[in-house]
Parts: sequence; structure tokens; C-alpha cells
Amino acid sequence: MGELMRRFWVPVLLQEELPAPDSPPVRVRILGEDLVAFRDSSGRVGLLDSHCPHRLADLFFGRNEECGLRCVYHGWKFDVEGNCVDMPNEPAESSFKQKIRTTAYPTEERGGIIWAYLGPKDLLPAMPDLDYMQAPASHRFVGKVLLECNYFQSIEGDIDNSHVGFLHSLVGTTTVPGSPVTSSTQLQYQMRDKTPRGFVKETPYGILHAWRRNADLSHYHWRYNHWLMPFYSHVAGPPGSTLGIFLRPPRDDETTWAFVIRWHPERPLTDRERTALATGESVMPSLKSGTHFSKANRGNDFLIDRALQRSYSFTGISGSIYVQDMAITETMTPIVDRSREHLGTSDVAVIAVRRMLRRLARELQDGIEPHAAHHGEVYRVRCVEGLLPRDVPFSEDAPRQLLAARP
Amino acid sequence: MGELMRRFWVPVLLQEELPAPDSPPVRVRILGEDLVAFRDSSGRVGLLDSHCPHRLADLFFGRNEECGLRCVYHGWKFDVEGNCVDMPNEPAESSFKQKIRTTAYPTEERGGIIWAYLGPKDLLPAMPDLDYMQAPASHRFVGKVLLECNYFQSIEGDIDNSHVGFLHSLVGTTTVPGSPVTSSTQLQYQMRDKTPRGFVKETPYGILHAWRRNADLSHYHWRYNHWLMPFYSHVAGPPGSTLGIFLRPPRDDETTWAFVIRWHPERPLTDRERTALATGESVMPSLKSGTHFSKANRGNDFLIDRALQRSYSFTGISGSIYVQDMAITETMTPIVDRSREHLGTSDVAVIAVRRMLRRLARELQDGIEPHAAHHGEVYRVRCVEGLLPRDVPFSEDAPRQLLAARP
Amino acid sequence: MGELMRRFWVPVLLQEELPAPDSPPVRVRILGEDLVAFRDSSGRVGLLDSHCPHRLADLFFGRNEECGLRCVYHGWKFDVEGNCVDMPNEPAESSFKQKIRTTAYPTEERGGIIWAYLGPKDLLPAMPDLDYMQAPASHRFVGKVLLECNYFQSIEGDIDNSHVGFLHSLVGTTTVPGSPVTSSTQLQYQMRDKTPRGFVKETPYGILHAWRRNADLSHYHWRYNHWLMPFYSHVAGPPGSTLGIFLRPPRDDETTWAFVIRWHPERPLTDRERTALATGESVMPSLKSGTHFSKANRGNDFLIDRALQRSYSFTGISGSIYVQDMAITETMTPIVDRSREHLGTSDVAVIAVRRMLRRLARELQDGIEPHAAHHGEVYRVRCVEGLLPRDVPFSEDAPRQLLAARP
Repeated sequence: MGELMRRFWVPVLLQEELPAPDSPPVRVRILGEDLVAFRDSSGRVGLLDSHCPHRLADLFFGRNEECGLRCVYHGWKFDVEGNCVDMPNEPAESSFKQKIRTTAYPTEERGGIIWAYLGPKDLLPAMPDLDYMQAPASHRFVGKVLLECNYFQSIEGDIDNSHVGFLHSLVGTTTVPGSPVTSSTQLQYQMRDKTPRGFVKETPYGILHAWRRNADLSHYHWRYNHWLMPFYSHVAGPPGSTLGIFLRPPRDDETTWAFVIRWHPERPLTDRERTALATGESVMPSLKSGTHFSKANRGNDFLIDRALQRSYSFTGISGSIYVQDMAITETMTPIVDRSREHLGTSDVAVIAVRRMLRRLARELQDGIEPHAAHHGEVYRVRCVEGLLPRDVPFSEDAPRQLLAARP
Repeated sequence: MGELMRRFWVPVLLQEELPAPDSPPVRVRILGEDLVAFRDSSGRVGLLDSHCPHRLADLFFGRNEECGLRCVYHGWKFDVEGNCVDMPNEPAESSFKQKIRTTAYPTEERGGIIWAYLGPKDLLPAMPDLDYMQAPASHRFVGKVLLECNYFQSIEGDIDNSHVGFLHSLVGTTTVPGSPVTSSTQLQYQMRDKTPRGFVKETPYGILHAWRRNADLSHYHWRYNHWLMPFYSHVAGPPGSTLGIFLRPPRDDETTWAFVIRWHPERPLTDRERTALATGESVMPSLKSGTHFSKANRGNDFLIDRALQRSYSFTGISGSIYVQDMAITETMTPIVDRSREHLGTSDVAVIAVRRMLRRLARELQDGIEPHAAHHGEVYRVRCVEGLLPRDVPFSEDAPRQLLAARP
Repeated sequence: MGELMRRFWVPVLLQEELPAPDSPPVRVRILGEDLVAFRDSSGRVGLLDSHCPHRLADLFFGRNEECGLRCVYHGWKFDVEGNCVDMPNEPAESSFKQKIRTTAYPTEERGGIIWAYLGPKDLLPAMPDLDYMQAPASHRFVGKVLLECNYFQSIEGDIDNSHVGFLHSLVGTTTVPGSPVTSSTQLQYQMRDKTPRGFVKETPYGILHAWRRNADLSHYHWRYNHWLMPFYSHVAGPPGSTLGIFLRPPRDDETTWAFVIRWHPERPLTDRERTALATGESVMPSLKSGTHFSKANRGNDFLIDRALQRSYSFTGISGSIYVQDMAITETMTPIVDRSREHLGTSDVAVIAVRRMLRRLARELQDGIEPHAAHHGEVYRVRCVEGLLPRDVPFSEDAPRQLLAARP
């Protein structure tokens, strides 16, 4: 599975973590590998083995200067391509420098994120044309948070729609299926009908999964979401609202980076939206200052408040709703023993994604490269939710219809 | 050995940890297993696998409501018997709910403690009729503290009487055997004669062990204590004083729960006795607020005070004498390498208990169930200490004589 | 390799850690073994197995009194030779005491340090006649700091001279080889010529390694340093300055004790020199109060200051220059995977020391004892640096010439 992931571009840092040419190098742990990233004098991003190939000094302590990262132990200097461009402690006439290279991975910057490719040199993939990348920076928020569990547990939260009506609900929400919706917000559909019927379809980019709920006597409420190879998710919102994307690259087997994206296709985010995201009142958790680690975490039981749980919030975990997801996915144990699960009809998308990932991993073993890795254009899809007459069936075309019908 | 322990009722929580119907669920780790306990709306205590059988969400975050614990991930709800009594994210007509059960262990409440049975369903044991259970709640104190070592190391402190004259002594106590006792308290006997002679006898409940010391020219001072299957201990006191019981179920191989019981057979505990127990001035250590973890612990060398050790206390560890025991038993290493020991005559009870436990474990492998597990009445014994004429030998009947002779 | 090290005297504590007869016992972890040290009533130092042979109680909690360390569990008492000299919980007539011994290692005190011998009884080695031991206590400073890496990584910093011109340099130091030295301090030679030529020679005590740099048109600047079996280093200084010695015994495979010695052969250290050493402004790091653990450490990235790194210090790590070494050697990973290294000509001494250690370890397997272990006099060597005419070649005799030429 690691080989499969290394066929794709992988998000590794926020652009703001390397804010300017020659800014300080930063540590990167991704796909179980320890690396160091730096932005050189000309603005290019290097991603190198964290240890100098000479005697394994840690390049995190290095000097980022004059188009290269210089190890402070003996002054060896490397460019973004991993070439040793200076070796001042060896005689000037030595040819040793020419023989030294360090591991360096190609990087690209897109959509507020620094991406890297950690796979075989001759199989450089296409960058995925993710929906939000079309919008200018003003229209988006991109955050990053460390998750203390296997990446796939965190993905399962994105593709399992029936949990929304419970984990993120308020106490007292009616659970009677089919009762009429009186609220003005579409989120109410997910709270009123707790038993959505799920539909899945394999696509060139991954899995289209749709969730159908009773709305009124003549309509269903539909959410059309996407899981995109190898660890991305689109999360729909009601008309006019912002949209969500999660990128969840494995940091290693037991921890995950979540890149939390919120964006609007047509307008800049408002100050209020940005503030809510930055302070943990929206989908992004409140972080410990200067870190990507949530203040509410496993060590403090995600700050559960049992009185609040009794009276108002279904979980008793307030602030960002994403902390509710973290509480569940991180405490299943770092890697769930799946032989103990009991999957139901609500897990139809979980099952579909697991099957597809397993199939693609096996195909790769047989020499078949994953199609999506080389066709960035297949990622040009949008998620959407809305009402449709009861006789409109699940179809790949429905998202387009729903979008077209919007005011 | 784990199988043998699972043939008995095991103390898992203080009753006060589940104070009322529908109070918050609590985590339980016992015999290496992670569980969650809750008291349902009708007051019954449930003890379930800590992870929901659906997708392994942690039921600690669950809602305890309307006679069941509801997982906050998808709303699945379980009763104290482990039945899935609600599955609101699946279609109402689904029969999936009937197929789902989770691990649930029988529980009982007795003597201020919640007990559980973790063994085979068809071998439900009898509750041990421990001496202190006859007394009303007013007559007892029950505390709980985490020990950072194997359960058996902590038991050895209970059944090894010769350590009392050292570990719990004061500096300057004479060590001349047979010197006359002038103090009014019987504890002085243990301080004056540091070389008790130990006697052991196997019994239906475990091991009777007695410790004989020189008192005066015509009397011996005797302590008759009990070790009771599988990890309980009675600790005698002088006439009129409170009595002690320790229950020491393994939390896992390297940690132990100590239930520390202090009680009086004939009268309520006084306010002063309760305060001393609650504040760490008696047998119970002072705990970190809101936890069962001792303030004095391995991480701070049990707050040893070398000046105090030189001038007054044999160990330099003040406060609860039980912290002195913890200091010794927890720093032997989490599980002692017993091949390095050198046992003497003072270890006669340690040897007897080990032999009995090993024999019972082997018998169980051969299909012989432990007798005490099904005969709660064999636990009806009391410990006692006092003076007897020198010609009265060690006997099972002596405790009765000593008790009868009391004013 | 562990067997080889156990053929030598090993530094284990500062003398000041056992300041007086009957002072409190202290824990010692050395060569992977857990021990307890104490100074008995007559001033002799005992170094015993940390656990009492009776039931493995930790002797750290013991009472140091009347020429022995007494276990507080049952009062067994041991002298510095490991004999059980009191066993008060066993009958006076028992012969059990005579059968009990505990592990005890011989110790010696020399040069402000308590040394121990952990090898076979019949092969007691000679104490190394280290240069600094000839000087009175007034002339020396001896400190101790814990390193979080394998001992050999920390030694490599001592025997790799080319790192000095980088790791310990200031920003803007010219790197043009051969440019004339205008500064008055000899340290400037190391900053100006960054490409020293290294020379090595095997000796009876270990490896003599010398580093030659361009000084002026007719002179070279030479540093003659020593690595001494099995883990000591001499570090030269300019004429009139103090000299450095590092003793680096393995605490275990992944941690090391560094004994940091600074001394002057001819005069007492000044108050200013002592203050700089004690407060972390010189070679000794600033320690957390009451510990041997550096305030700047792996957990806080050695307090690197990126602005300082840009403007002044090559590393951005200020205070003791030794913290710069710790930053590099401790973050290579606890034990470097040497198959990933790329050694150059600057690593000539690293290569020579590794070869010698490996050869001596193999010889020991074949029954050949290490010569230096039994010939303390071979350690009587001094390091030196200075200018020599360009036609004077590397030789074992050069240090003597350089010393003789000093004013």
C-alpha cells in the first residue's frame, strides 16, 4: 500500500511553513520517512533526507543560504536536487564532492500546499486538478493538524455519512425517519433522517458516494461526495455555503497529517469565516500555539464535558466539530483490528474504498500503474447536496443536475 | 495463571466511581483487558468491551441513557448484558441489530466495591464472604490506588511479616531479640523482636500464616494473618484497633490495582480515622486530585527525605506507611526476576503462597476447578494478634482462642 | 566491545556526588548495568548491584550507616566488598548470612572522579596516568553531563578536527585556505583554514592524531591530539590556555556519560574560568538544577535561535560550544546506521579509532588482553598546538618539540 501511495503527489507542508527564500528549514515526517524541507534563495523548495550523507548529522540544524542547505557539522551543502554543491572541509582538488548525492524528492506548490513525489524517478505523476485549486487564495483556508491514528481511520469518517446525524448532532434531535423538515438549513436533513441510504460507484478518480434521505413526500435530500485516490475527500455543503476538502497523507503507520481545506467557489472567505477557522469554532481544531497539535486531544479526553453531553451536545465535545471526529477515530486504537468490526449497510462507502485500494495495490504488484496518478484531469469533480424529486435515481450525472438547479 | 484468576470474582471499581444511575461511563483496565463500565437507568452496572463492535469507536465517549450505553459515533446502544438494543443508523426493518452482541461481564456490588466475573459463562463463582462485608458502610473505608508493578510483588509485602520491624520502623528501635516490652502498643512487639518465627498452613481459602515473637518470659506475641485466593490479604491489628484488608487484582502484567480496606467489626470509623485515611496519614497514600495515583511515586523517588531517614524514619519516606511498601515493591523492577532471589526462613509464607498458586494453576490445566471459587463461605475468617502462653503451639484454632480472650 | 571496555577502569561518578562518609547512596547506570554507590563510614566507596539479593528491593532507598549499606526492606546490610554483614530478620544462630554475597565492583578515586572496574576479578587493570591527574584539585574542573546517544558518536566529535571550523565558527569567517592569519589567537587558524590535513598513528595508549593547517608562507599550524583507550580524548589549546579532556563511558547502548575536564598544568583555574564552566559559558553546558542534564537538549532543539544563526553564530546555538556538539551527535539518531555514511579524508582519525577498537575487540576474543589496560604509564602524554616550519613532518616526537619551544 505504501508503494501505491508513492505513485501520487503527496501534500507535505503548508506553503506558509516555508514562508520566504532562505527561511529556516523544517522537519517533515511523511510516509514513515524523516525529511527536511527548505526554500532556497531562488524560492524553490527542497525536500531532502533529514540526515547529511557524510556522518548523518541532522540537516534541520543546517544553514539555508545561497541556493542550498549547508550542514553545520562540516559545511557540506546540498541543493534542492540533492547534489552536493560545496564540501569545504575536503581539499579543493578533491573529486569526492562529485560522488556525493543525498535523497531529494521533487516538490510542487499548488493550492497553498507544498506537494512532494516520493516514488520512482521515471514515473513522475500528474498533479491532481482538485476543485479548490482553481480558486484564488482569497477564496480558501488551508490548515494542518496531526492525527494520532492510522490514516485510513480518519478517511472513514469522511466517507461514512450516517455518523453526521449522531456524532455532530445536538441532544433532542428527533430520530423519527421521514418526519417533515421545518428548519431552514439543509443540515437539518441529516439530523432528521438518521438512516440515509448509501450509494457508491467506482470512478476514474476514486469512489463517488451519495447519501439519500427523506425530505418531504415528493423529494429526497441527496449528498453527493467523493473519495479521491489515494487519501483525499470532498465534503458537500448546502447551496451558498463553503465546501470542504480533506487531504490525509500518512505521517507513518500510526499517525496522519490532516490538511483541512475550506473554500468557496465564487467569493472570498469572509473575515468571520477565517476567524472561526483559525480559532477552532468551525471545522478546524484549535491548535496549541506554534504547533499543528490540537489543544483537545487524546491526553485530555478531548476535553469532554459530561454536563454538556447530558444537556446539549451529543458528544459533550464542543468547539470544532472536527475534534468530535478526532475523538472517535484516534481512540479506536492507533490501528484498528478490522477482524473485530461488524459492518452494516451504512458502511457501503467504507467497504467500496477499501476494496478499491486493495485492488489497486494488488494491480501495482502485477505491474499495472494506477490510472489517476497520471491523469490529473479526472480530479475535476465537485461535491454537492440538495433536493431532487423522489423518482430521480442515484447517478453519476446527478451532481451536475443539482448544481445546475441552484439559483 | 490468568485463567485461574478468571475463575474468581474480581474487584474492578469503587462503587463511588459509578455514583448514580446514568452517571458518566468510566474506563476499566483489568487482567490486561480494556473495558468500559456504566450504571444504567435502573442502577445495574454494565462492564463492556471498551470498543463498539461496529467500527471500534471507544464507548468511554458514549452516552449513558435510558437503560443502555449509546456509542456517539452511529448511535448503537448496548444494555448491561451486551445486547444491541438500538441501531438507529440502519433501516428500521433491518435484522442486523439482532445479530450484534458485545462482550459483557457479570457484575455484583458488595462491600463498597463493584466486582466482575471475567471467566467462562457456565462457571459463575460464589462471591467471597470476606470478613469486612458483614459490617455496614459506616464501619469501613475503601480506597483504590494504582501500583506500578506486578500484582504478586505487592502481595508479598502483605504476607512477609518480618519487614514490618524494618521498613515501617523508627530509627533507634532496639534490635535485641527478647528484650522486655515496655510500650503500651502491641506494634512495639514487632519493633522489638525483629526475627519473628513464621508458620504456615494451607487452608480451603488460601494460606494461614502466623508470626511468633518473644513477648515476656512466659508469653509469645502472635499475629495470625490470611492470604486468600486469588489475591486478597487480611492484616491483623491490636485489640480494639481497625483491621486491614488488601485486594490486589492485576491491572495487567506490570501494574496492579490495590483496593485498600480499613474497617472495624464493632463500631463506625471515627471522623479522625476517616480523615487520616483520606489525607494519606494512615495506610492509604495521598492521591493526586481526581486520580488513583499516589503523589509520592516512582517518578519522584517516593519523596524520600534523607535527613528524615538519618534522624527519625527508617526509610525517610513519611506520610502513609503504605507508600513505604510501594517504594520497595515498585522499584524491584516491574516484574522481579525471581531466579535472582535468595529466600530465607522469613519468606516461609511467600514460598507457601507461590506453591499454592502454581499448584492450583496446574490443576486447572488438568481440569480441576479451584474449590474456593465456588465456596464463598470459606472466606469467613478473621485475622488477630495477641499474647499467648509460650506452650501454646501454632494451630488453626489459635485465632479463635485469641479472639475469645479479648475483653 | 563491552567485554573490551570492562578490561579498563571506568569513570562512574564525580567525587562530589558522594561527598562524605555515610552520605546518601546514589544510583549509577554504567555499561548497561544498574548499580548503587555509597561512601561508607570509613570513607571507602562501594558500588553494588542496585537490587538486594534477598528479594530484589532497591538499595537506593537503603540506609548508609556503620560501614555498610542496609536495605530498608528487611535490614540486610552489605559492606563495600559485597559481603552480607548483618541479617537481622533471620535467627541469630542462622548461617544463611555467610552464604549471601552481592555483586560489588572495586573502586578508586583519582582526579576528582570515582572509577570502577567491572571486569574479571583476576585481571584488575592499572589506573591510567592521565595527564591532568598530576595537577592538584585547584588546577582543574571536572563536570558530568548525560548525552542521549551512543558513546562512539560523541567520541567522533573529539577526533574529527575539521568540524571545528564550521560547527563552532562565527558567520563570515573567511574560508580561503592559506590566507594570512592576522588575529592574535590561535583559534583563528582553525577558522581560516577549513581544510586541515589529518595524520594518524597507532600508539600504545590509542591513536595520536594531528591536524596541519596553513599558517604563513613558511609555517604550518599543527594540533596534536590523542584518543586514549577505551573512550578518552585529549583536546589541545593554544599556549598558556587551559587543556581539555573528555571521558565518555557508555551509560548503555543509547546514552553516554561525558566527564568534561578542563585544567591548567601550571596554575590554579581563575574564578572567572570556574564561573564560566559552571554557568555554561565555556565547554560545559548549563545543567538543569540538581541534575546532569543539559538545559538545552533534544527536546527543545538545543534552543536554536534562527536569527542568531543568520547573523552571528554558524549554528544559532549559543552558550557552551559543547551544546553545539551535543546538538549534532545526539540527533544523528541514538545509534548511527554507519552503512549510510560517506567518509572523506577529514575522517582519517575516525577511521583509525574504529579500526583499532575493532581489532582489540577481536584480539580479546582470541585471548589477547589489551596492553594499555595494564600499563597506566602509557597514558602520560600531552596534547599541544603551535607553529612549526613547513619542512617539519608529522611525527610522534613533534608534540615534545612544540612544548619545548613554548616560552
